[in-house]
Amino acid sequence: MDQNVVYESDNIFAKILRGELPCHKVFEDDVALAFLDIMPRAKGHTLVIPKTPARGLLDMPKAAIGPFIERVQTVSRAVMKGMEAEGLTLQQFNETAGGQVVFHLHFHVMPRWEGIRLRPHTGELEQQDLLHGYAKKIRAAF
Amino acid sequence: MDQNVVYESDNIFAKILRGELPCHKVFEDDVALAFLDIMPRAKGHTLVIPKTPARGLLDMPKAAIGPFIERVQTVSRAVMKGMEAEGLTLQQFNETAGGQVVFHLHFHVMPRWEGIRLRPHTGELEQQDLLHGYAKKIRAAF
Repeated sequence: MDQNVVYESDNIFAKILRGELPCHKVFEDDVALAFLDIMPRAKGHTLVIPKTPARGLLDMPKAAIGPFIERVQTVSRAVMKGMEAEGLTLQQFNETAGGQVVFHLHFHVMPRWEGIRLRPHTGELEQQDLLHGYAKKIRAAF
Repeated sequence: MDQNVVYESDNIFAKILRGELPCHKVFEDDVALAFLDIMPRAKGHTLVIPKTPARGLLDMPKAAIGPFIERVQTVSRAVMKGMEAEGLTLQQFNETAGGQVVFHLHFHVMPRWEGIRLRPHTGELEQQDLLHGYAKKIRAAF
């Protein structure tokens, strides 16, 4: 990968940040936005994205990465508590070879319970009422 | 999980930090240590751990998490460059249900190439000479 690769502002998360697309929001401040993954691998699977335009971890400005990970931690605590999870799995993908699909930096925060595997990536959309309920639980846990 | 759970200093990464166990080191400063996973899921699979004693992401002190993730980024760039990777997959596990095995906060940084899947967790040890070679490449890329 060219580490100087250009950020493209037509990606789906940039559109969510601009309010051009809806999301099941669980957190927002001046640094980050967190919302539910609509194709979740676990109940309450949450995405945390920075407001700073960055393609992935490698091109995120050094001054912005610390404040961003603080929000990832804050959201992770709320996901754990709100979903009454027993653990969390975090993933962060860079470039297509690394598993990235949307080219705006994001951390996956997935609640986990003993004996329950992550669902495979099927591309199947979760029911809106379920997402609504999980988002409500997580928002209440901040 | 009890978020106030106690850090236990007899874990294997704490022993590596204290120099009681060897590692294939790729980076070290006052904030973090990075070394190769001896049961890698990809060539050059690297672990980045903070010197701050933290069990996982949730109990990492807020003041320490920003500087730590800056090192994760620095190491990620070197892994990408040194291994001539096409992408990176990062993972971070919290608690047994979340996939955690060693209870000292760590980020997995796994180099990726198109068409090459991550190896399953087999528990099989990588050959020392291969680890030695990958560590050398990554160290040269900082």
